[in-house]
Amino acid sequence: MCAATPAPNFTFGSDNTAGICPEAWAGLTEANAGCVASYGDDPFTTKAKARIRELFQTDCEVFFVFNGTAANSLALAACCRSPFTRVICHDYSHIDTDECGAPELFTGGAKLTALSGPNGKLQPAAVEGALHLGHGVHFPKPAALSLTQSTEWGTLYTADELRALTSLAHANGLAVHMDGARFANAVEASHLSPADLTWRAGVDVLSFGGTKNGMQTAEAVVFFNHDLARDFEYRVKQGGQLASKMRYAGGQWLAMLRDGAWLRHAAHANAMARRLADAIRQIPSLQFIVEPQVNALFVEMPPAVYAALTARGWQFYRFIGENGYRLMCSWATTEAEVDAFVADLRATAR
Amino acid sequence: MCAATPAPNFTFGSDNTAGICPEAWAGLTEANAGCVASYGDDPFTTKAKARIRELFQTDCEVFFVFNGTAANSLALAACCRSPFTRVICHDYSHIDTDECGAPELFTGGAKLTALSGPNGKLQPAAVEGALHLGHGVHFPKPAALSLTQSTEWGTLYTADELRALTSLAHANGLAVHMDGARFANAVEASHLSPADLTWRAGVDVLSFGGTKNGMQTAEAVVFFNHDLARDFEYRVKQGGQLASKMRYAGGQWLAMLRDGAWLRHAAHANAMARRLADAIRQIPSLQFIVEPQVNALFVEMPPAVYAALTARGWQFYRFIGENGYRLMCSWATTEAEVDAFVADLRATAR
Amino acid sequence: MCAATPAPNFTFGSDNTAGICPEAWAGLTEANAGCVASYGDDPFTTKAKARIRELFQTDCEVFFVFNGTAANSLALAACCRSPFTRVICHDYSHIDTDECGAPELFTGGAKLTALSGPNGKLQPAAVEGALHLGHGVHFPKPAALSLTQSTEWGTLYTADELRALTSLAHANGLAVHMDGARFANAVEASHLSPADLTWRAGVDVLSFGGTKNGMQTAEAVVFFNHDLARDFEYRVKQGGQLASKMRYAGGQWLAMLRDGAWLRHAAHANAMARRLADAIRQIPSLQFIVEPQVNALFVEMPPAVYAALTARGWQFYRFIGENGYRLMCSWATTEAEVDAFVADLRATAR
Amino acid sequence: MCAATPAPNFTFGSDNTAGICPEAWAGLTEANAGCVASYGDDPFTTKAKARIRELFQTDCEVFFVFNGTAANSLALAACCRSPFTRVICHDYSHIDTDECGAPELFTGGAKLTALSGPNGKLQPAAVEGALHLGHGVHFPKPAALSLTQSTEWGTLYTADELRALTSLAHANGLAVHMDGARFANAVEASHLSPADLTWRAGVDVLSFGGTKNGMQTAEAVVFFNHDLARDFEYRVKQGGQLASKMRYAGGQWLAMLRDGAWLRHAAHANAMARRLADAIRQIPSLQFIVEPQVNALFVEMPPAVYAALTARGWQFYRFIGENGYRLMCSWATTEAEVDAFVADLRATAR
Repeated sequence: MCAATPAPNFTFGSDNTAGICPEAWAGLTEANAGCVASYGDDPFTTKAKARIRELFQTDCEVFFVFNGTAANSLALAACCRSPFTRVICHDYSHIDTDECGAPELFTGGAKLTALSGPNGKLQPAAVEGALHLGHGVHFPKPAALSLTQSTEWGTLYTADELRALTSLAHANGLAVHMDGARFANAVEASHLSPADLTWRAGVDVLSFGGTKNGMQTAEAVVFFNHDLARDFEYRVKQGGQLASKMRYAGGQWLAMLRDGAWLRHAAHANAMARRLADAIRQIPSLQFIVEPQVNALFVEMPPAVYAALTARGWQFYRFIGENGYRLMCSWATTEAEVDAFVADLRATAR
Repeated sequence: MCAATPAPNFTFGSDNTAGICPEAWAGLTEANAGCVASYGDDPFTTKAKARIRELFQTDCEVFFVFNGTAANSLALAACCRSPFTRVICHDYSHIDTDECGAPELFTGGAKLTALSGPNGKLQPAAVEGALHLGHGVHFPKPAALSLTQSTEWGTLYTADELRALTSLAHANGLAVHMDGARFANAVEASHLSPADLTWRAGVDVLSFGGTKNGMQTAEAVVFFNHDLARDFEYRVKQGGQLASKMRYAGGQWLAMLRDGAWLRHAAHANAMARRLADAIRQIPSLQFIVEPQVNALFVEMPPAVYAALTARGWQFYRFIGENGYRLMCSWATTEAEVDAFVADLRATAR
Repeated sequence: MCAATPAPNFTFGSDNTAGICPEAWAGLTEANAGCVASYGDDPFTTKAKARIRELFQTDCEVFFVFNGTAANSLALAACCRSPFTRVICHDYSHIDTDECGAPELFTGGAKLTALSGPNGKLQPAAVEGALHLGHGVHFPKPAALSLTQSTEWGTLYTADELRALTSLAHANGLAVHMDGARFANAVEASHLSPADLTWRAGVDVLSFGGTKNGMQTAEAVVFFNHDLARDFEYRVKQGGQLASKMRYAGGQWLAMLRDGAWLRHAAHANAMARRLADAIRQIPSLQFIVEPQVNALFVEMPPAVYAALTARGWQFYRFIGENGYRLMCSWATTEAEVDAFVADLRATAR
Repeated sequence: MCAATPAPNFTFGSDNTAGICPEAWAGLTEANAGCVASYGDDPFTTKAKARIRELFQTDCEVFFVFNGTAANSLALAACCRSPFTRVICHDYSHIDTDECGAPELFTGGAKLTALSGPNGKLQPAAVEGALHLGHGVHFPKPAALSLTQSTEWGTLYTADELRALTSLAHANGLAVHMDGARFANAVEASHLSPADLTWRAGVDVLSFGGTKNGMQTAEAVVFFNHDLARDFEYRVKQGGQLASKMRYAGGQWLAMLRDGAWLRHAAHANAMARRLADAIRQIPSLQFIVEPQVNALFVEMPPAVYAALTARGWQFYRFIGENGYRLMCSWATTEAEVDAFVADLRATAR
């Protein structure tokens, strides 16, 4: 008699396998009342933008789009303005590895110069070198530096590291974009303010992630540099990213920011990752590829262990090298799930 | 002492000023349970696609995107495949007048040949003429015909009219796209099946509107022509339209199709428009620009009447000519709202 | 025994059916000596650019590209900078009717708003109206006005007419492009200086035609507005328009400008057109559609006359309406050719 | 008293610093007679295309464009058809390093996957790996393999090597493009026929270089795969690459192919490179980075030697690593120039 296949469990697969968190859900509910003006001229959107400006303690310009690919690509298009340009980024950056050429599409043909760097972080020397690739007009002109915070390796740039990179970029005429799909996790873990991690550190435009924080189709693009924001509303519309019922983006953001839910959820995800990390450290056959700082763990895991976990229903992905797996926690991950996973880990790894 | 300004009332402004309908809300709720695979590999999305195939009684291919602009533009890009092409459309088509060049962006530079036609409908003779514009390679090659059903003027193509146009298109090598932002209203008002109004009438790809039917960020692109659908999943991703939490699109569509809510809401919107139309017919100073067939009325209205209604808070827009206003009903429009509007109309128009 | 078919004669078909004029040929010859630096770092190119600056009596920036489509499209891309924009132009403009969507391609998806206007000329009122098409972000933002001088109808804008249009454009934030495929003919016929017809009249960037003036693959893009010229060298390269052996463009321009050949050839073409026009005026069955001002005649011609001329080998094209034919003279057209054509005309038309 | 600076000598800087060769010049002269139809409907163009078909012993489709960047980029756009695609190429390929993102522009946003490989050549194992980069729709779909023959390192793929790569490409649904900017040099040095080096080896489309072979603004795009060639004439026009006076491209190609001048010039350039190589081999302080096979030498040269040669007027460029310089010979390079350079080399290097 054959054993039942366990239901697949996507908990640690990504932070986008979780649903809408209660606060965002409440925001949706509040926004779902009566008729309001469409395309962002509603009170939810207006208030949410004001609230984001308060959060960043500056008069930034805020736009809502549907997902992270769009937030990043439209922001980069605004930075580049022309197709004969280059974006310098890390070779593990989402814009290069996981957006199917969306930045290339929305810029009309810009190139990404993807650089390696330890722990998922760009280093000034590498960026410096990349600025001078090619000879004159025969190679695209560098126009933007894109940084991911927290990084795709689950690490953090310090404010000093950010400043070193953004100064170099600005000194060479590049705009600085930050992919903040997990910006909340970065703010929470760094104990720095949103302002300190962005405009005070030289960031011109931030993709402020909502989805992985517990929302749905509600990413914010936040411009600290007003020149870059010029006409961005047209870009959003032409890019197929202007919601007619934008109230739901506004409503979710309002609710998430109102009582600090955005940070609370990030703190929870980060804490679950720490709980999982603490357990993993006790298992000699598993190694961290990089010391975790936020809600993602990257673990070197013997193939047999991965196979055994998969057989028990756990779904997560290989990410770095041949046996480097990513384990991701979210606002929805429970201690019980962590503990169940750890139990299965202990049963298979030694 | 100055009078209080009435709160603006967007009820008749558009069918996207209403919120999420109860059934779609239920769909969201059902989808919001636990962790599921992202990017469409979840059971809600899978079932919704199957349900749409049943609805159309054919093995069509279904993709979910965020809004109508994206649905139309990506579908047209799939029809055109190349930037040296043309899309033939009505000069009141949304793709030409209200999408800020999104079709041009996503095709990489195709041109729209916008033709006038009575009652918002294209006529074969005009399309025939448009096929032969320009001389050879000096003018873009016609690649697609785009039809809107129901039209931007609130009218309907009959199945025979559709067939006449689609035959002409196919005979000349053009693919046929249907902008069905209000496809539900068209199905309900025409008493024809979804299949009869699309693939049986020669439509290759349909933008199947969810938003105006009561959903949120959940439009479907339905390909009846499998060749055109090839690799469309890449186009969706690169276009910034792949939802990580796609379960919410799937969940809403499932719920809307399950018990016929999609048609019921369209029927309601159409009925509210009829109720409003019947009242307007009694007011001699108001004329219909076109005989209404679905949920939109186009009314020639003296400026003073418009001004008076605006002063009472009603928000709706000029659309055709100098004094042609559009009044739109939705799933959410109530008889009481219609009656209140009619009362104000009667008070100001004679 | 059947009659011999006469060899086709393309003389009046276009001003690009003629070859390279003697002066341009001399320029090619001079440039064809020894090894020189490529991509424009050669003395011919440098001197030609300086000579063009002298011609325009201002510090303009000059770039050479291969043909008029590229000159126009790249110049417009520089004016628009973004894909969510519009170019306002005449509905007989070459950019709209004869460049297969090249402006759309090189701008990444901008739209052309093509306006009718008498005698091939745009009128301020029409442009004014076109500025305000669409509502907000739902329609592309007007970014450039494109004027053709001399026009596609063989007419001329006066300096006052230019100024009225360019002031309107600038007041609304639009850049002004001039398609000068036949700029030489316009300068000669208007008795105005190159400066008066361009920057003094508010033109920001000129496509200065070489081909129709007697050269080969050598159009100049001349920026009077330095902001628009920023990084244009990258655009030229990425657009596939940077000649490695640019010396031949430089050499031709140098030779054409050195002794006034460019104006002499334009004067000749204009004079041949006048000679032809004078003869046509004597033939009652032929009517001018528009009073000719440069080297093109637009003649309403009975179909039988056109058929008879074609049978005698003359190749020219229908251009306006059902029986409106274009007859074009070039630097190479001879009095004998004009007289032979007139003789055939007289033999067939009355 | 300061010494006179020697005139710069560009002979070895590139094979595009030379002018138009006598046979191409004769072709220009022959084409420069009378009025002919424009845009390629002239006898020179027609005959030249027929002659190229004979050369390749197959019914290929031929298009003329202005330069190599355009030939490559338009050919790749024809291979890719869609912007969500990838081109696999060598990391020294001209399309990646020297075309300022033109392939990205003309494809509308495709990505180049640039791979390292010894001696400037791609290896099947590397290509195999590159086919499987990324996960599903999150990374662009591989659509084309681009090979350079002769390579940017002055080496040659053997027919067997080509077949191994093209079979792999075809087995995975990729089209194969060959950048043949120096195709003549490759044919001559390999002692293989044009057919053997292209379609018999699995090449779908060739950029057949004219410029570096002695012509001006006359590259050919040769499609062996007719499906890929569909509508390419529109792509050429929209891409700003359709010459109105195409007769000059046709005339040059006709003259170059008529008496074998194209191969003779390649043979000369290759021979001059061998002469130079033989001399360099005698100088112990100079090393070849790669064994030369055609008209380019890559030499590791002490900085002092480079400085001394520059001081004597020789202009050539660093290309590989810190001290790897490229010396290029062309149809115009003379034995005397080689010997003079060698003399200067011997005077400075030991």
